[in-house]
Amino acid sequence: MRGMDYRGSGVDIGEGQRAVDLMKDAVRRTFNPRVLSDLGQFGGLFSAVFTDMEEPVLAASTDGVGTKLKVASMTGRYGTVGQDLVNHCVNDILVQGAVPLFFMDYIACGKLSAVTVAEIVTGLAAACEQNGCSLLGGETAEMPGFYSPGDYDVAGTIVGVVERSRIIDGSAIVPGDAIIGLPSSGLHTNGYSLARNVLFQTSGMSPDEVHPLLEGETLGDALLRIHRSYLAPLKPLLAEGLIKGLAHITGGGIRGNLSRILPPGCGALIDCGWEVPGIFRLIQELGNVDRREMREAFNMGAGMLIVVDSGDSENVGRQLASGGEKPFRAGIVTSGHGVLFTDGPD
Amino acid sequence: MRGMDYRGSGVDIGEGQRAVDLMKDAVRRTFNPRVLSDLGQFGGLFSAVFTDMEEPVLAASTDGVGTKLKVASMTGRYGTVGQDLVNHCVNDILVQGAVPLFFMDYIACGKLSAVTVAEIVTGLAAACEQNGCSLLGGETAEMPGFYSPGDYDVAGTIVGVVERSRIIDGSAIVPGDAIIGLPSSGLHTNGYSLARNVLFQTSGMSPDEVHPLLEGETLGDALLRIHRSYLAPLKPLLAEGLIKGLAHITGGGIRGNLSRILPPGCGALIDCGWEVPGIFRLIQELGNVDRREMREAFNMGAGMLIVVDSGDSENVGRQLASGGEKPFRAGIVTSGHGVLFTDGPD
Repeated sequence: MRGMDYRGSGVDIGEGQRAVDLMKDAVRRTFNPRVLSDLGQFGGLFSAVFTDMEEPVLAASTDGVGTKLKVASMTGRYGTVGQDLVNHCVNDILVQGAVPLFFMDYIACGKLSAVTVAEIVTGLAAACEQNGCSLLGGETAEMPGFYSPGDYDVAGTIVGVVERSRIIDGSAIVPGDAIIGLPSSGLHTNGYSLARNVLFQTSGMSPDEVHPLLEGETLGDALLRIHRSYLAPLKPLLAEGLIKGLAHITGGGIRGNLSRILPPGCGALIDCGWEVPGIFRLIQELGNVDRREMREAFNMGAGMLIVVDSGDSENVGRQLASGGEKPFRAGIVTSGHGVLFTDGPD
Repeated sequence: MRGMDYRGSGVDIGEGQRAVDLMKDAVRRTFNPRVLSDLGQFGGLFSAVFTDMEEPVLAASTDGVGTKLKVASMTGRYGTVGQDLVNHCVNDILVQGAVPLFFMDYIACGKLSAVTVAEIVTGLAAACEQNGCSLLGGETAEMPGFYSPGDYDVAGTIVGVVERSRIIDGSAIVPGDAIIGLPSSGLHTNGYSLARNVLFQTSGMSPDEVHPLLEGETLGDALLRIHRSYLAPLKPLLAEGLIKGLAHITGGGIRGNLSRILPPGCGALIDCGWEVPGIFRLIQELGNVDRREMREAFNMGAGMLIVVDSGDSENVGRQLASGGEKPFRAGIVTSGHGVLFTDGPD
């Protein structure tokens, strides 16, 4: 499962083994009785007997961390990018109604540091544990000449499961449905090329700088805030069958992602009443980025949109709030097509 | 499923969409009735109802192509690396007795070329089709500043299934068992950093050069030979229950990989009688690489080792040969521990 291939010149097998030694306890903590393999085998084995389901369907999604990794590299802090990745993937299958089973990671670098790889994998394992997901396997590839010193690419695949009759695909959405938003924790994992360009290249800021819009946080801390998982607040609502559609707001923003779940004949009007967090306003101001581009690159503070029957809206909002969430009214489903914003054309 | 995230500056959404348009027919050809999703959704959906199995177990493996990608980059030929990756992953779960269900890919580059990405994915899809595996989803990440122009990293995760009572883990192996080898098609996906160092840096060869040891093939062709899948020849033997252990010879070579499946109290004596293909001899000669290092970095012509009861050896060899394979006697399981070679200590 966790492979550490000897790939000829420039590859240090001992360092790879040290990384495995440093990470193995954290990885094993994510195992449950479904995991039938241990570290070091060719593949990971996971029981697929789902006695409580009539027609289990696997949901799988692959993603990377993107250039948020450059912020990790700049600051030398790799402990959180693994959590970003797992949570991102958890959300990507959650929007179909699926809960996570296991995760497989891929880490690639030019020159392997056992401490850094262990830091990344420990982050992956921590998020897996929080989401009830096993870190079943992975690959760490040392590819001399492919990556700059200190750079690591981190990607992974999640596999989850959903009862076929419970798959959420947005097809039940009708005009008049309510759209509820859940706050993001920050940029999550999208828009980092633009953000870095504006903040570091154009404006010359440094990661340890503070700014009034960041309310005491350093820029590095604000940019490395962990992409949050929406599994805990949404799982009970999924079980109750209250959710008609979920849009995880990643690249493409609200318009790009909400459009993916609206059935033909449905559009959306987004009510721009929530407060956009300071980090987005900072990027917009310093880069003089227009509103449309901001909305396509960033989540603007809305990390997950939930579509529910308008009659369920209050109940759902109350349930979310009682679990400690801060849900906000994000808009309504309209007839027609396209996603419009209340603060004007863009 | 196939995500094409907008990641801010330097990212061309149109080019990403062109890549999807170019690849989509090849990807859809890998779909079967188990696939319940289409391109463009958040996650891929795959039916997990296995009515013909008592206790289905998922087998998952993640791998990359490694620095074989540098040869693809040098020659501008990206059509085969996707096949390398899928076949490698198919073999990695095959050694546990599992057959493939679906594959998820991850492609990362600095500046996306639609044609190159489509070439890679079309190769992935072709190998998926050949192995009866659906290319269920993937992620193409454009990360400016992370990769050199023309470089693409390609990794992926396979998920397969095996009946729990049919999992092969080598525990049934006893001293006296026969080890049968199946030829590799070339370097497969291991040892490329060493090979490139010797052939290109030290010896100054070019990819279009020929050499007597390559028997008319150019060096580029020899290095890009596709990592073969052993699913077709081994599937019938697995069904018959004739196989006690399988070792896919990747990084670490015969010793490293065979050791992973030998139970306590068992070693192996490898009978070095087969002819080592020219490409390995060329690397060894030009680089003056010692035998031990060659054996750790390369498969030396043996891509898969099969452990069977000595009484089944002839039957298994005959079945493999009747299917067009060229099996060879690779050695025997010994009592004790460690993997030794008949041509001397190392």
